[in-house]
Parts: sequence; structure tokens; C-alpha cells
Amino acid sequence: MSQEPRPLPKDLEEAIAFDSDGLVPAVARQHDSGEVLMMAWMNREALAATLASGQVTYWSRSRKGLWRKGERSGQVQTLKRLLLDCDGDTLLLEVDQAGVACHTGRRSCFYRALEGEALVEVLPVTTDPTQLYGE
Amino acid sequence: MSQEPRPLPKDLEEAIAFDSDGLVPAVARQHDSGEVLMMAWMNREALAATLASGQVTYWSRSRKGLWRKGERSGQVQTLKRLLLDCDGDTLLLEVDQAGVACHTGRRSCFYRALEGEALVEVLPVTTDPTQLYGE
Repeated sequence: MSQEPRPLPKDLEEAIAFDSDGLVPAVARQHDSGEVLMMAWMNREALAATLASGQVTYWSRSRKGLWRKGERSGQVQTLKRLLLDCDGDTLLLEVDQAGVACHTGRRSCFYRALEGEALVEVLPVTTDPTQLYGE
Repeated sequence: MSQEPRPLPKDLEEAIAFDSDGLVPAVARQHDSGEVLMMAWMNREALAATLASGQVTYWSRSRKGLWRKGERSGQVQTLKRLLLDCDGDTLLLEVDQAGVACHTGRRSCFYRALEGEALVEVLPVTTDPTQLYGE
């Protein structure tokens, strides 16, 4: 199912500093509420697929493949705006997150906070993970 | 000026997945407004220094040294809360940013957005960079 690599917009191609593995970290935030949802990685192909489809697609470093967010769980991310930082090595994705971003069933992956010396859970599970991924 | 390495809280030590270079990406957001300010990297020592002092300290990959944010510019970040994501490989820092986060004099490093095929600047320079770093 390999596809012709899509080119990136010239401005982006010139400005993005992919790392030595060809990856760039991408922070996703909910476009209206500002919630920081997750951080994952993109390669050139994932970014091109995201721009072409409007559906956020990452590169899974563990599975070594494109990972269209929500492809199994249905919890897709629709891209609203893409921002780039000053040195071009991090993306900020303003998205509309369907349901929950985290595979644990929480809205955001950042659900543990340090309080004193302890990590405590600060976000509730709002969707049963077995409903996201089946038994 | 080397110091004894400070231990991390046990919960954090067990939960954080530093990468093969001993680093973890850290996303900084303004604690009250929710603005995403920047992304940089921490090693164990930078994180320990941040927790001990309450002033955010990163690891500069280019300078290969600890980088107390604002040490030259005065634009320090005071840590309000530290969050960790589900797989422990990204930190979210809720901070109080003095002045501007970006060395270009903009509030956030994410000041370029893709509009159509073009990257456009979406945040103004609010502080003259020569005032931050001298001539």
C-alpha cells in the first residue's frame, strides 16, 4: 500500500528541521479550549498525509509505520491549523479532537501531575478503553 | 561547577522514559492563559534542578549544557505544575513566563502558521531581541 510521496509546501520544506531519523515532534492541542492533548512524531510522509487529508497522521516509532490518529479507536483529530516554532524543529497542531486523545480513555495524555513527591491522576477516564479498542 | 546529581522523586524516576540520549521533551505552556510557549529538552539533571529551584532549566542540545531559561535574557519560567504523559516520554510544564519565551522577542516560539501553502507570522515581536541579549 505504498504511495508516491507527496511533496510538502515549499515554505514548510524549507523551514522544518527533521531530526537525524527524519522525524519532528508534534504537539496537539484542542483548537478552541487550548487543552494540550498529546505529543507524537511525524515524518515527512505523515505530515504530507495530514495536510492532504486534514486528518492528523503521525509516525509510530514503535510500529514503524504511519498512524492515522483514531484509525482503530475512532478518536480522530481534524487539523485546524499547523504552527512551527522558531527553529523549525517542533510542530504545534491545533486540532479538533473527537472524543479522547489518550488510549487510557482520558481526554489528554497528560493526566498525571507531580504533587509534592507523588504523581497523581488529575484527569478522569471518560471513555472505557475497551470500547475504544475492543476486547 | 559540577554538582552532586540530585535524585528525582521516586514516582517520577519510575515513570519517566528518558530516550537513548537521556533526554525527554518538555512542552511549556503558560499556566493561566494556556498559551503553548515552546518545546525544549530536559535530562535528569535539568529536571532535578527545575524541581529544586522552581525555575525551569532545560538541557541545551546545541551547547551540551544546562540552560536555565532566562539566564541571559531575564525571561525566566517559574514552574507551576509538572505533568507527564501516558507513556512517560513527554513532560508538560505549566509555567509562569516572564516576558517572552522566544529569542526572537515573541511571546511564543510557535509564531509561524501555515496558511494555504505559505508560512505566515501570526505573533508580533513585543520585545526587541537586542534588549534581551544586548548588542
